[in-house]
Amino acid sequence: MINIAVLGYGTVGSGVVEVIETNKGMVDKKATHELNVKYILDLRDFPEDPYGDRVVHDVNIILNDDTVGIVCETMGGVGAAYQFTRQALERGKSVCTSNKELVAKHGPELLKIAGEHNCNYLFEASVGGGIPIIRPLNYSLTAERIDAITGILNGTTNYILSKMEREGADFDEVLKEAQEKGYAERNPEADVEGHDACRKIAILSSLMLGKNVDSEKIFTEGITKITAADFLYAKEAGYTIKLLARAKRQGDSETLAMVAPFLIPKDHPLAMVNDVFNAVFVTGNMLGDSMYYGRGAGKLPTASAVVSDVIDCARHQGKVITCFWDEEEARLSDVGETKRAFFLRVKSSAGQKVQEAFPGGRVIEAGKGGEIGYITGPVKEREFQAKYEALGGEAFNRIRLF
Amino acid sequence: MINIAVLGYGTVGSGVVEVIETNKGMVDKKATHELNVKYILDLRDFPEDPYGDRVVHDVNIILNDDTVGIVCETMGGVGAAYQFTRQALERGKSVCTSNKELVAKHGPELLKIAGEHNCNYLFEASVGGGIPIIRPLNYSLTAERIDAITGILNGTTNYILSKMEREGADFDEVLKEAQEKGYAERNPEADVEGHDACRKIAILSSLMLGKNVDSEKIFTEGITKITAADFLYAKEAGYTIKLLARAKRQGDSETLAMVAPFLIPKDHPLAMVNDVFNAVFVTGNMLGDSMYYGRGAGKLPTASAVVSDVIDCARHQGKVITCFWDEEEARLSDVGETKRAFFLRVKSSAGQKVQEAFPGGRVIEAGKGGEIGYITGPVKEREFQAKYEALGGEAFNRIRLF
Repeated sequence: MINIAVLGYGTVGSGVVEVIETNKGMVDKKATHELNVKYILDLRDFPEDPYGDRVVHDVNIILNDDTVGIVCETMGGVGAAYQFTRQALERGKSVCTSNKELVAKHGPELLKIAGEHNCNYLFEASVGGGIPIIRPLNYSLTAERIDAITGILNGTTNYILSKMEREGADFDEVLKEAQEKGYAERNPEADVEGHDACRKIAILSSLMLGKNVDSEKIFTEGITKITAADFLYAKEAGYTIKLLARAKRQGDSETLAMVAPFLIPKDHPLAMVNDVFNAVFVTGNMLGDSMYYGRGAGKLPTASAVVSDVIDCARHQGKVITCFWDEEEARLSDVGETKRAFFLRVKSSAGQKVQEAFPGGRVIEAGKGGEIGYITGPVKEREFQAKYEALGGEAFNRIRLF
Repeated sequence: MINIAVLGYGTVGSGVVEVIETNKGMVDKKATHELNVKYILDLRDFPEDPYGDRVVHDVNIILNDDTVGIVCETMGGVGAAYQFTRQALERGKSVCTSNKELVAKHGPELLKIAGEHNCNYLFEASVGGGIPIIRPLNYSLTAERIDAITGILNGTTNYILSKMEREGADFDEVLKEAQEKGYAERNPEADVEGHDACRKIAILSSLMLGKNVDSEKIFTEGITKITAADFLYAKEAGYTIKLLARAKRQGDSETLAMVAPFLIPKDHPLAMVNDVFNAVFVTGNMLGDSMYYGRGAGKLPTASAVVSDVIDCARHQGKVITCFWDEEEARLSDVGETKRAFFLRVKSSAGQKVQEAFPGGRVIEAGKGGEIGYITGPVKEREFQAKYEALGGEAFNRIRLF
């Protein structure tokens, strides 16, 4: 039997207990050990909960109990969660987490501590909720040089964009509805400004490179400026609009990492990823393209991923599972220097000017009076941006092409 | 350093050597050992090949060399491949294979022998080519009760169906073209009659259940009867046609397993899997739906999967990797007793008869003179089949709905 402690009895933490309970026979068989939830750490009490008697308020009870082998950190944040994770690992207790913020910020350090204490720090649930992606990167695509990872990594923004496309609605309107339905937080900034996706691509790109990608250095742009009109033109031109988190090797020593809304062709596999679903599109030098698709969030999918990590720890007790993620900083490319095509939406009066500024592109008509759309040929971001800003009030929006 | 032997220097076998060579630094790092291709077994000689000096013609050289730790079986077939695999495992050499026929036929027996000799029998490349699916099922979705697996598992048939849809062409015509391009074999039966997909779903469903699913007991129907006209109606009704390999738990003790062409809604993630791409759609009781997509065949994708197995063996030397696939036979449901909707295409003169036989369905018009399409409500296969056969020459075709 292996004793487990769950830190934080919120949505994911209670989901972890539910998954272990619901699938007990199967989970124990796969773990090759019986798993027993011995403690639940929370500031609150849960007198009505069948697991209420396991609740403790002092983390030291867990840290000092040598019979606890695996800790699930489902608290979130980088304060107490960081302290408790360190302390658990230093005592040789493996830690499984859904806390992407902590993994993005302290991943390599915590992995190192785990290695030094012969235990594991696993974080399958930190990216893509229930989609297995961390383990495929670490265990399956091992014969590949992974050249690029492109993900739809945030369910809230994908839900909003899908609904905007389907209903021709504007951002504010759909966000409000999403908040009412509980698909978006009351303070939606982390999602709609791309910060959540940014942390996730920092984790994935670090695993792709084996070096550390600092999430704070990743160029990040959210979806708040996307309008119903943009979708009209995108559709007309055979595209949809998705918030993509990208990491792409550039030559031998640099990596382009960014989060931004992109126009993506309607027949690209990522274009069909709608609503709260997430997907990760991986390009390897031998395998070519592959994609991993599923529910990127939600209590049980996320908890299922945490429990899969618990099972992995149980199978590998006393053995460190290989994970290449050094503390060495990866070199990120200057986004301003990358070349790509852009979509612009401008006043009709600026049509001529745009075609002269970006020759060789194509005009998109979407039946909206007084304005036109235009898709440029490949142009350096910095150059594009300067010319775009020169259009001043005549330009309504611009979106990158994938 | 770990010495490797490759059995069979054909497409996949030479791909294995190419992957190990091209990605050498990365592969060795991930394997935590240097990998050295010491022998290549083939009946032919390859004097021009840079690895020509490793070629041997007698398997005993490999079997009797105690320095060989891992064998890649890329020969195919169930004769010599079976013998050599057994002999290697009995000597404690791990075997990694792309041979779905052998895995489907002798998987649990070979896994047992491997376990008894403290080595591994791995077969990631046997299903879905380069798509990681075996390892996600065994390592990642471990907290799930997997309720259903639906795959597009054969690249040749998917290429043919995609082309028929896109070009409005008929089966024979597209098959001929595919043969000329090398996408279909000169003897295409294993692909177009569904036998290849059948072996693959036998493997996946065995892993889903932990019991053995006998591929010879799986209901299998190919795509040779699908016509351009069927696609017209499918499109009109919002569907496409795919050859799906399905395994689905029915209650606690039975599993429905089958391979057949299905009408699948255009907005289903599997509907966008086109050309030679494959995908596996997995439904778990906690995670809900997830999908794994990529190149289902081809030299380098398949070889990459074999090498990922080699790396796994290298990481786990002397340790048996958990795989639940017992020799106990799984109980398969009677396909005739399952209920589903059907699409039929009949002479206009039989329209009234069809609507009376299957009340509550809907007529599909596709602008073809002299015939109509009809989609029934849910009906037992056996009952449907009897009524369909009674239509005799008035019926042109029938296809199941997913």
